[in-house]
Amino acid sequence: MIRATDDNEYYELTSPTLLPKASGFLWNEKMMIHMNCRGYAVAQFMQPEPAKYSHAPNLEAKTFMQPEQPYYAHHPGRFVYVKDEESGEIFSAPYEPVRVPTDRYTFAVGKSRIVWRVELKGILIEMSLSLPKEEPMELWRIKVKNLSQKSRKLSIYPYFTVGYMSWMNQSGLYREDLQAIVCSSVTPYQKYQDYDKIKEFSDKTFLIAERAPLAWEVNQEAFEGEGGIMMPSAIQCEELAKGDALYETPTAVMQYRIELEPDEEEGYRFAFGPAQDEEQIARIRGSLFLSQNAAGEDGFTLAEREYDAYIREGKGCIEISTPDRDLDNFVNHWLPRQMYYHGITNRLTTDPQTRNLLQDHMGMSYIKPQTTREAFLLALSQQNASGAMPDGIILHKDAELKYINQVPHTDHCVWLPICLSTYLDETNDYTILEEQVPYADDFKTESVYEHIHRAMHWLMNDRDERGLNFIKQGDWCDPMNMVGYKGKGVSGWLTIATAYAFRVWSEICENSGRTEAAKAFRMAAEETNEAVNKHLWDGDWYARGITDEGVAFGISADREGRIFINPQGWSMLSGAADEEKRARLIRAVEEQLETPYGVEKLAPSYTSMREDVGRVTQKHPGSAENGAVYNHAAAFYIYALYVVGEKDRAYRLLRKMLPGPSLEDIIQRGQLPIFIPNYYRGAYRQFPRTAGRSSHLFNTGTVPWVYRCLIDGLFGVQGTPEGIRIEPQLPSDWKGAIVKRDFRGARLHIEIKREIGVNSAEVYVDGTRLEDGILRDVQSGTEYHVVVKIPE
Amino acid sequence: MIRATDDNEYYELTSPTLLPKASGFLWNEKMMIHMNCRGYAVAQFMQPEPAKYSHAPNLEAKTFMQPEQPYYAHHPGRFVYVKDEESGEIFSAPYEPVRVPTDRYTFAVGKSRIVWRVELKGILIEMSLSLPKEEPMELWRIKVKNLSQKSRKLSIYPYFTVGYMSWMNQSGLYREDLQAIVCSSVTPYQKYQDYDKIKEFSDKTFLIAERAPLAWEVNQEAFEGEGGIMMPSAIQCEELAKGDALYETPTAVMQYRIELEPDEEEGYRFAFGPAQDEEQIARIRGSLFLSQNAAGEDGFTLAEREYDAYIREGKGCIEISTPDRDLDNFVNHWLPRQMYYHGITNRLTTDPQTRNLLQDHMGMSYIKPQTTREAFLLALSQQNASGAMPDGIILHKDAELKYINQVPHTDHCVWLPICLSTYLDETNDYTILEEQVPYADDFKTESVYEHIHRAMHWLMNDRDERGLNFIKQGDWCDPMNMVGYKGKGVSGWLTIATAYAFRVWSEICENSGRTEAAKAFRMAAEETNEAVNKHLWDGDWYARGITDEGVAFGISADREGRIFINPQGWSMLSGAADEEKRARLIRAVEEQLETPYGVEKLAPSYTSMREDVGRVTQKHPGSAENGAVYNHAAAFYIYALYVVGEKDRAYRLLRKMLPGPSLEDIIQRGQLPIFIPNYYRGAYRQFPRTAGRSSHLFNTGTVPWVYRCLIDGLFGVQGTPEGIRIEPQLPSDWKGAIVKRDFRGARLHIEIKREIGVNSAEVYVDGTRLEDGILRDVQSGTEYHVVVKIPE
Repeated sequence: MIRATDDNEYYELTSPTLLPKASGFLWNEKMMIHMNCRGYAVAQFMQPEPAKYSHAPNLEAKTFMQPEQPYYAHHPGRFVYVKDEESGEIFSAPYEPVRVPTDRYTFAVGKSRIVWRVELKGILIEMSLSLPKEEPMELWRIKVKNLSQKSRKLSIYPYFTVGYMSWMNQSGLYREDLQAIVCSSVTPYQKYQDYDKIKEFSDKTFLIAERAPLAWEVNQEAFEGEGGIMMPSAIQCEELAKGDALYETPTAVMQYRIELEPDEEEGYRFAFGPAQDEEQIARIRGSLFLSQNAAGEDGFTLAEREYDAYIREGKGCIEISTPDRDLDNFVNHWLPRQMYYHGITNRLTTDPQTRNLLQDHMGMSYIKPQTTREAFLLALSQQNASGAMPDGIILHKDAELKYINQVPHTDHCVWLPICLSTYLDETNDYTILEEQVPYADDFKTESVYEHIHRAMHWLMNDRDERGLNFIKQGDWCDPMNMVGYKGKGVSGWLTIATAYAFRVWSEICENSGRTEAAKAFRMAAEETNEAVNKHLWDGDWYARGITDEGVAFGISADREGRIFINPQGWSMLSGAADEEKRARLIRAVEEQLETPYGVEKLAPSYTSMREDVGRVTQKHPGSAENGAVYNHAAAFYIYALYVVGEKDRAYRLLRKMLPGPSLEDIIQRGQLPIFIPNYYRGAYRQFPRTAGRSSHLFNTGTVPWVYRCLIDGLFGVQGTPEGIRIEPQLPSDWKGAIVKRDFRGARLHIEIKREIGVNSAEVYVDGTRLEDGILRDVQSGTEYHVVVKIPE
Repeated sequence: MIRATDDNEYYELTSPTLLPKASGFLWNEKMMIHMNCRGYAVAQFMQPEPAKYSHAPNLEAKTFMQPEQPYYAHHPGRFVYVKDEESGEIFSAPYEPVRVPTDRYTFAVGKSRIVWRVELKGILIEMSLSLPKEEPMELWRIKVKNLSQKSRKLSIYPYFTVGYMSWMNQSGLYREDLQAIVCSSVTPYQKYQDYDKIKEFSDKTFLIAERAPLAWEVNQEAFEGEGGIMMPSAIQCEELAKGDALYETPTAVMQYRIELEPDEEEGYRFAFGPAQDEEQIARIRGSLFLSQNAAGEDGFTLAEREYDAYIREGKGCIEISTPDRDLDNFVNHWLPRQMYYHGITNRLTTDPQTRNLLQDHMGMSYIKPQTTREAFLLALSQQNASGAMPDGIILHKDAELKYINQVPHTDHCVWLPICLSTYLDETNDYTILEEQVPYADDFKTESVYEHIHRAMHWLMNDRDERGLNFIKQGDWCDPMNMVGYKGKGVSGWLTIATAYAFRVWSEICENSGRTEAAKAFRMAAEETNEAVNKHLWDGDWYARGITDEGVAFGISADREGRIFINPQGWSMLSGAADEEKRARLIRAVEEQLETPYGVEKLAPSYTSMREDVGRVTQKHPGSAENGAVYNHAAAFYIYALYVVGEKDRAYRLLRKMLPGPSLEDIIQRGQLPIFIPNYYRGAYRQFPRTAGRSSHLFNTGTVPWVYRCLIDGLFGVQGTPEGIRIEPQLPSDWKGAIVKRDFRGARLHIEIKREIGVNSAEVYVDGTRLEDGILRDVQSGTEYHVVVKIPE
């Protein structure tokens, strides 16, 4: 069973085999941990380096998160082996590694806690994980309860995998004085220049126990013996051997022997994480387990509570009650949490891609707009005086542009006005335009207005003679790297996006009293749209681009990659598509890109390399993956549908971003509806067996756009310079909805209901009708009661 | 049991648990595969890229070989699952993954074939692996025999792991037309510039079956199900599901169902490897299985035979019969094979470290001296006109200096005369000195003599005012990277090695008629030795160096790293150590560095970082590993002992390079005596539990030096300009020895025997005594019968 419980505080799954990859994640400012229902740590990451304190069993390429990650017997995880001392029977919680079928099982993902409850052979094992607010460290509680009618003798073995720490040096031992297993390593390096950096790394992994164990093992090979990970030889012995690891793979397993009367239970607590030295471990132990506050709470309990409060700060600006209970739960609890994660952690990279940083902080406009403001100013301070934005934003003094941020992309500038507009909608803080900010390559400082002005001119100039924007080695979302690396190829999407950016910027100029500039950019948008219609309209949809050799692609003549979603949705935003074109392209998308799991990014999926196009997102042609349901791209299409008033289609597609409601759908996607993954598998018409599967990656620019779909579209509660425009677009089959909207310090209680006799929406605030639907002069600290009557 | 069998063609191990990491390796010019006794592929590597066709189950850091590699349940391997169709019982050969204890078991490592023979429940499974001579591909035979008294119904499932090929794209399917499983992937890349390279990669993995399987599975997750790798769910079904993999981890498993009468057997053959496309796979299948020669042999059989012949070409220039049978077997069969491997494959890197290339080809002087000649000329063509040798030698047009070859080391020049001298000893080919060779950074060409002359002058100039050689960021064997990076620190070993290089070069000059130069370098050697004795003698041994800050280390005042082996052995070669110093340092080595497993490189092992010294070999201080028994360093010490006539001590230490003869010793080392590993664990006095363990890495410059110990020392059959000097140094407790020595086209049958009344060695050739022990004017094509009488 899959359900929201405890007043929607948790999402629960009651089988470890139904959705074997179902997972939840926790984060704080230093780390992220992603756990699955069977006990595997899907991903665990810290920034800055070192990234991990719990490693794979072999030398791994250190990566943050991988899509659709395969698991294997020794995948890093957190487990509890249980041995019945009388019968000798062994099982493990939550399911791996022993895989004994459970009598009862619950995997409950909360916002600040993940809990596994496993009943087997009359024993309940409850494992729960939380984090402290600031330190990279896991806080574990393990409860053992006797559910049977007789007293039971048990050994329980909490088992935390440490793995292959380093080929340069690894070891481990139990420190009696710290009541902890301490594993040590040195991050490998070759150049002496790197030593000063790596020597500061927290290269130790600790497992601190609140209660002294009976015995322990720190040597993975000794622990497993010939029994292997599924039935470790050491557990078949009476006591663990208290071994150490000397340039051997370390592990962290402890043994507790208990006797439980019927209904009796015992609890254990552990801290597992990285440290730089033993002194730090001693301090951590002291603060968690050896000191109490006036109320008698120890540091461990306090840390859990602080973390819960910290996570609760990340709530959104709407609370909804609609006929769609799953949507309510997601929007009220999980969607703002996912946005908050992005805004707080910057995806745990020290050099986020510029477009990611801007969009992630666009989302923060709804939660903590001050953070957004700071992030935008930081990004602009790394702009070149030419107007060009860098491929990534450096967040940490030692950071550098890595990997994909070394490949030049041409779209970063378009995100500036687009993301800024949401911040302005929420805050009306036009003073940000006057902030003075330096450039990366020039001593002068200029206002934010000038910065964005230069960015817009950069876009205006980075075009060919037809007025189409160069793509160079890629742009957003489907970075085709061979379209235009010779300097001639152009991007259909980017040209359209540029028109949209001009349009948005024109409005911002208008709202800030810059009428001339507003007019100029309105005209620039129109001219760009004309070029788009002249060169890119293919008859029923817009082409994705034109290569260095002048070959248009993403067109009806193509066998694969005939149609891409991005130019279509954005053409409705930019105004390029008139009503007729809109109708045609919406039909084309429906026929070719809509699937039961959402809108695909392109179709048919490339199954082999097309060398004039090149790489399509991270999944190479030849994989079915490049035609995925990329939710980020899909969210823009949905947003555009709201902008043009296609509310039923928009809601239908929006709803597909979440698994369910049918069990078949959830199983095919393989994920709980607690986050929107960056993609679901696509290529639905080519490879239906795998279509719909979740990537299980929750890093995605999708979420702020889903929020904008809700704010600007579905519930129609978007801010304006004068106040807030109330203009909902409920799907036709909804009777109504209730929305609590926090806005510029005020709170609006909005009831939307259908009423016979109403021809178009009527908005009443505290009983008074607003003719244009705009509530002006919103007073901070005030509550407004709004009724919206919409036609039956 | 552990034994040499079949006329020393194989080394056998009869238990999979006695030496669980025991292994053997095969190579050809394109690939290397290292298999262990339990079915795991310890390492599999190809050069040039891509390195692998069989991957780990997670995203792995691609490495060639790792020391003391830990295994895990899903470690890549080659296995055969067997199911008794009547009882449903399942086991696997050779042992992993199911780990059912065997009734009989043999792991037999041959020079061109590795065989596993497993008997369990009345069934014999024999797996055998060979390679073709040129292609990177595995040739497998699997035999199934009914050893029981009744007919048996079985399903057998040959299982070849494919693993996580790429995050960019991976898939797999069974191709009926090719009778093969074909898995496809694209090597991940970010920059379009790399695409042209990666698109040529052999990114497909195939398993071609000679006989069509009943069924197959290509999807790892579907294959395992909830049963996992130890008891795959798919095998518990009647038939494999014939699935495919679509951006899922692929695997290659086939099912054959057979009924065997008592004593009946069936055989299967497979080819497993990489390919660029399906056409290539079709060609491989055609050549292996679909065509025959006149004798009715198919390509598979022929390829095995060719490979065996190819490996047999790599024989050494001595064949010995001594009281030490294990030594005989190793020297006659395995030692030249290991040297040959180095000389043929250049360790499967495209940019071998310069010192490695020179020493590996020094070893080839004994096998194929023409190869040595070419390698030396190639290396010198990459020398700078300043005399400096680069850190690595580029072997392939696309190769570049990677990893450690980007860290400047100062020792490369010393290896030129030292390695050349062996080539000259063997061939007397002094014409090599007159070969004209270009420089890397200059248009001029000069003779090899001039090149080495410049290298010697480079060493002469790269010194401080005391006449000690700078170490910069490291030198050989224990590259301490912080001793001298500021430009002042000096290397004790390198200064001593420079004196030795001058001495050797002086002799080469003398032998080639360059008397003046000979004299000059003899004097330079003496002056260098004087500086060494003045600044580096610590009272009982030589210091390892002096840091940038003027701190001598490797001295008696140090708590850790008090004594290093390298300065000691080399000081006997360079002539720095007079008789008194020799006696003192030999005693110090015995007391502090000798262990039951050989001579440690340094002691006490560093257990924490000493920042003015830095990294010590690949194992960082803090690991017990930097004090290992590095056989390469030990071999020089032993060589030096022979040079100074310490024959008993030399033999005793030489013998410790091989596991055994006691079973305890073999178990502690965990390795079969078929290769000398680069190290055995050291720190014997600090960490006895792990001391002696083999690294299991067979890439090591040790082997040519062991061969020189045998040729120049133990059996005393070293070449000279005039002919060959016969001057054995048998250990005191040997009654005698017989040596067949191939030399410059002649063959010497040498019998060494003790005789009462002989006071010093008497050498008789075909009955005539040679007063000075030198056989002159050796005639190619002639056989000589030599008797050496040595004192009783």
